[in-house]
Amino acid sequence: MGELEKIPVGIIGASGYGGIQLVRILLEHPNVDIVYLGGSGSVGKPYGDLYPHLAHCVNLSIEPIDIDLITSRCRVVFLGLPNGLACELVPQLLRKGCKVLDLSADYRFRNLGTYSAWYNKDRTDHETAIQSVYGLPELYQEEIKSTSLVGCPGCYPTASLMALSPLLKQGLILPETAIIDAKSGTSGGGRQAKTPLLLAEAEGSFMAYEVASHRHTPEIEQICSDLAGYEVKVQFTPHLLPMVRGILVTVYASLRDPGLVRDDILTIYSAFYRSFPFVKILPHGVYPQTKWAWGTNLCYIGVETDPHTDRVIVMSAIDNLVKGQAGQAVQCLNLMMGWDQTLGLPRLCFYP
Amino acid sequence: MGELEKIPVGIIGASGYGGIQLVRILLEHPNVDIVYLGGSGSVGKPYGDLYPHLAHCVNLSIEPIDIDLITSRCRVVFLGLPNGLACELVPQLLRKGCKVLDLSADYRFRNLGTYSAWYNKDRTDHETAIQSVYGLPELYQEEIKSTSLVGCPGCYPTASLMALSPLLKQGLILPETAIIDAKSGTSGGGRQAKTPLLLAEAEGSFMAYEVASHRHTPEIEQICSDLAGYEVKVQFTPHLLPMVRGILVTVYASLRDPGLVRDDILTIYSAFYRSFPFVKILPHGVYPQTKWAWGTNLCYIGVETDPHTDRVIVMSAIDNLVKGQAGQAVQCLNLMMGWDQTLGLPRLCFYP
Amino acid sequence: MGELEKIPVGIIGASGYGGIQLVRILLEHPNVDIVYLGGSGSVGKPYGDLYPHLAHCVNLSIEPIDIDLITSRCRVVFLGLPNGLACELVPQLLRKGCKVLDLSADYRFRNLGTYSAWYNKDRTDHETAIQSVYGLPELYQEEIKSTSLVGCPGCYPTASLMALSPLLKQGLILPETAIIDAKSGTSGGGRQAKTPLLLAEAEGSFMAYEVASHRHTPEIEQICSDLAGYEVKVQFTPHLLPMVRGILVTVYASLRDPGLVRDDILTIYSAFYRSFPFVKILPHGVYPQTKWAWGTNLCYIGVETDPHTDRVIVMSAIDNLVKGQAGQAVQCLNLMMGWDQTLGLPRLCFYP
Amino acid sequence: MGELEKIPVGIIGASGYGGIQLVRILLEHPNVDIVYLGGSGSVGKPYGDLYPHLAHCVNLSIEPIDIDLITSRCRVVFLGLPNGLACELVPQLLRKGCKVLDLSADYRFRNLGTYSAWYNKDRTDHETAIQSVYGLPELYQEEIKSTSLVGCPGCYPTASLMALSPLLKQGLILPETAIIDAKSGTSGGGRQAKTPLLLAEAEGSFMAYEVASHRHTPEIEQICSDLAGYEVKVQFTPHLLPMVRGILVTVYASLRDPGLVRDDILTIYSAFYRSFPFVKILPHGVYPQTKWAWGTNLCYIGVETDPHTDRVIVMSAIDNLVKGQAGQAVQCLNLMMGWDQTLGLPRLCFYP
Repeated sequence: MGELEKIPVGIIGASGYGGIQLVRILLEHPNVDIVYLGGSGSVGKPYGDLYPHLAHCVNLSIEPIDIDLITSRCRVVFLGLPNGLACELVPQLLRKGCKVLDLSADYRFRNLGTYSAWYNKDRTDHETAIQSVYGLPELYQEEIKSTSLVGCPGCYPTASLMALSPLLKQGLILPETAIIDAKSGTSGGGRQAKTPLLLAEAEGSFMAYEVASHRHTPEIEQICSDLAGYEVKVQFTPHLLPMVRGILVTVYASLRDPGLVRDDILTIYSAFYRSFPFVKILPHGVYPQTKWAWGTNLCYIGVETDPHTDRVIVMSAIDNLVKGQAGQAVQCLNLMMGWDQTLGLPRLCFYP
Repeated sequence: MGELEKIPVGIIGASGYGGIQLVRILLEHPNVDIVYLGGSGSVGKPYGDLYPHLAHCVNLSIEPIDIDLITSRCRVVFLGLPNGLACELVPQLLRKGCKVLDLSADYRFRNLGTYSAWYNKDRTDHETAIQSVYGLPELYQEEIKSTSLVGCPGCYPTASLMALSPLLKQGLILPETAIIDAKSGTSGGGRQAKTPLLLAEAEGSFMAYEVASHRHTPEIEQICSDLAGYEVKVQFTPHLLPMVRGILVTVYASLRDPGLVRDDILTIYSAFYRSFPFVKILPHGVYPQTKWAWGTNLCYIGVETDPHTDRVIVMSAIDNLVKGQAGQAVQCLNLMMGWDQTLGLPRLCFYP
Repeated sequence: MGELEKIPVGIIGASGYGGIQLVRILLEHPNVDIVYLGGSGSVGKPYGDLYPHLAHCVNLSIEPIDIDLITSRCRVVFLGLPNGLACELVPQLLRKGCKVLDLSADYRFRNLGTYSAWYNKDRTDHETAIQSVYGLPELYQEEIKSTSLVGCPGCYPTASLMALSPLLKQGLILPETAIIDAKSGTSGGGRQAKTPLLLAEAEGSFMAYEVASHRHTPEIEQICSDLAGYEVKVQFTPHLLPMVRGILVTVYASLRDPGLVRDDILTIYSAFYRSFPFVKILPHGVYPQTKWAWGTNLCYIGVETDPHTDRVIVMSAIDNLVKGQAGQAVQCLNLMMGWDQTLGLPRLCFYP
Repeated sequence: MGELEKIPVGIIGASGYGGIQLVRILLEHPNVDIVYLGGSGSVGKPYGDLYPHLAHCVNLSIEPIDIDLITSRCRVVFLGLPNGLACELVPQLLRKGCKVLDLSADYRFRNLGTYSAWYNKDRTDHETAIQSVYGLPELYQEEIKSTSLVGCPGCYPTASLMALSPLLKQGLILPETAIIDAKSGTSGGGRQAKTPLLLAEAEGSFMAYEVASHRHTPEIEQICSDLAGYEVKVQFTPHLLPMVRGILVTVYASLRDPGLVRDDILTIYSAFYRSFPFVKILPHGVYPQTKWAWGTNLCYIGVETDPHTDRVIVMSAIDNLVKGQAGQAVQCLNLMMGWDQTLGLPRLCFYP
């Protein structure tokens, strides 16, 4: 593919953490050119004013969100807006022939009733929503390849589903026993100045939040139900870690067959993810650390069984802003365009 | 009680984090005098060389562990040694008339077979061990008042049992469904120079460790079985937080009666802990943060029920080195001496 | 002094970090009672809604800032408002007979022209301002004892002046060579939701800010000039540390007499601060760590000389919210009331 | 250049933080193959046991340090050993025709007497040492291109010299007034388990160390003297930041011509570094943050002048393990091999 054929892409909602990750990754992607950065809050500002460390390599400014402008320039559009805004724009973008990857919750739900109940927003774009594919390549690779609209998963659902999917798909657990204890760095809260996300508040502390009421619960349950073949309920509890990036989920579930041992489960996981280059199943006795995934599109998975309680414990670690957000979106783009899914995506963290 | 009647106390194993917490708390305790600081590694060193910030208020040096010396000087002895050493010293200390509070695991187990299996050490001091009381005042207050030997609980068991006890005691849950997802700051690992506890390794990262195999599991199960009236197994998973101090445990269990709601549970918890000044039950919708307990002997507990899954979720937060270790030991001392249990113990954190 | 005679105190601006520190410290102060907490943003809110960890021991709500109400109830008033607001209230408070301690910059400057130039606010309360004493007890103890109005120092000036004062007072350095390289935790920025103070932005990073233009420069210079006996200019550079609390300043200056060695300087510092219980001069070769001062009113000072460059290097560490703010204000209150200056003030940190 | 022509390189001392950075960078370098990883402590261990997150992409084990083995396999050798060991190996490596890049202090000094005085080690390899070039490409690009032995700079000297060089080279300052106040993350201390580098000790704290006595002082002075044309002394003070990676130095110096303003200095810096792709001079009013350089080989420089004191203040930020160590070594390799100096080196950080 020659220089001249690079695909022009745009990012609506480029000023937040999702936006800056997309910019960072797409700048090093060999097959695309960033030609538009849009937003509402900082229109007219050079991008380097928002992120001075990039001033030397991005000379675009934030432009208004103008559909004609965007569609005249871009073949692919990423949306990184707050929930409830993408659904106003995406039908028009698709109509003009753009491929669309939405990072918000707007196109993650098959049942828009569920969406409206949890996100407090009525929807009139049912025809559009029905075309959307849930952007988790390890589960929906083929569907992503042939769609024009991807609803990219939330960060917690990504980590949770990577850990749970083989168990549910292979029927190894009693689904109603599944408990997901999830922990995230504060960048998941975005670049919004909220008091609980201040360093002075969050540093050196740890807490749970939105217990039994977090919006990612129905999103996780939708896909789990898909995998199990019937409606599944899960327990999901998010916690806030005193650090910037990374999610670790610890999943507990009762084994259907208590005779299964750790090595059996490891074999099943390795087989399940065999063709997926971003998933790394750890050898027995090794558990994932979030830092290993820092700045990469990798998901590290560790597995343990407890013969004392007949449970399986699965831990998965991702970078919430890469595999949990922007990196996964680019992985989906690669599939949509027929490219290698790893193209342009970071695979080695800096450690320590 | 006059100045002249202060009780002389000694600390064996004063150089570690347990030791320094004891020193800090006992220095401000109105009824005791620290008269001996012992250790093996730094004999002869002024304590202010180990902790320069205390040089102005501690002018003792580390002395050798000599039973005659100790018992001639002290009426109360705290031991903060690695597991397996206290059991060699405690019988002699008791024989000479000292009251003893051991911070290691040596005197936590009623069944020394369990101890030996998990701590890999044979024991010959059964007669001594049988006199020991498990030093969790919120459960064993009366027994502590009348004993001469307290086996102080581990930090994880303290936080876990504070969260679980009312549920088990009142028979509200199916015990075998109990899952304890526990998270601790790195100071729990002690002042030992181990690679995984380096800031460069642990900062900005998060992971589980010793999954399904941590030594605090049998300790928690012993007390849970006591409360339930029959043998209980729990799932316990420790994690390492990128911060210095604090433990949060998130406990999940299935309710026997799914009709119970959050406010019922809160009422039960408030009643259970009514006479215990260090336990704070949070109002509905408020969940504990570890930082609230920083530097105090408090335990904050938050409760949630999930009608979607018929589970109760309980979170408890403590300072692992105070309520989880040295502070709780002093609370036990207060009870052993017939003093107010709050004497000399910090109750207000500095925030943020 | 009996229970009945406790002094009633009020805090205007109680919801910020200065406010919560005052509340924390005054709650444990034996001679005062908090009888009023005022603010503008959260009027009517129980204080425990702002800081849930204190709900069990503070049952006041935020009340409006009403001078009659305040002066009818309080004999002492602390003000923790943004700069430029205290000067509207203080004249009235004094007229009604209250003693006043202001934590803002409003009453720190002898020359109100300097204040107006740096804080962009005209002042009409010259008569009041002239009565104010700069609340650094180690320099102005006698004046504080006999005033009704204290302008409490900024956090950086406190740490800087503690390090510099003996050098200037004794004429040991060339004042124009003094450079103050200062570093502070982010709590110095207050409980305001500003983007650069988010954990996601500030954690794991370090930077200078307001280089050659920070408002604490003229405040430091005013006192330095006082000490030197003529107008002194200093170089002052603040930096933001990725942590909650603590300031360390590193001060450089050329010695007038290069023959002076470290031990000479240590002797001079020890003599200078001999009667001040919160200042700890460290022995040679020991340099202060901010964590040693955490949660205390202490200032740790370390000194080094460099025969290679003929400079003296002095480091001082404080807790920016205690000795740098609320603790020092209470130290001033103690002096104003004729009490022991250490009354109710924390002197031992929790470490680690 | 085809696949078959990749240059075989080896790393002696591959298990530390310098080693892992080299491995990380060289794995993505298009022109080299890692063919040897050597060490003394972990011989025989798979590299993936030391760094499990890399197990999927490195299948080498640590091999003994055997000169014949190394030189038979490698054309280029990096050494990441403790000071004083490289000088025993390098003469043999050069004799066998290898190009050598040493990350220790052994080959940084033109005057081996200075080395021996500060590093407490006698040297007999004068002939070898004399061939060595100081590996700071922004100053010694041409010399690096034609040498076989590079002594890679220390992390502090790199950051310090990047900030100071234009001032000294152009004679803009009075050299004897130069003060370097330097701050580093704890990864600079290596992957050694030392108590002060524990998270529990270093987190949430800040301190200076080795004041007026750090070994990087003579290294900085050697190059400063080179630039100034006569012997220069500098004041250098290192501090330990509570974070993993990054160095910021704040440099102060008195201007020869106080009429120079910030924009003059910025122009001079931009010209000085014009042909160096890894140096980014920030626009006026923007100061560097260490996080901007995280995981990259960039050096960000900000400049301020203070007309009040006639000083210039320069801040430079680097990643201490990349531009401050392994990245810069690879930049030197690129020059030695005649490749583009940016080849294989990361230029965009992940932010936040």
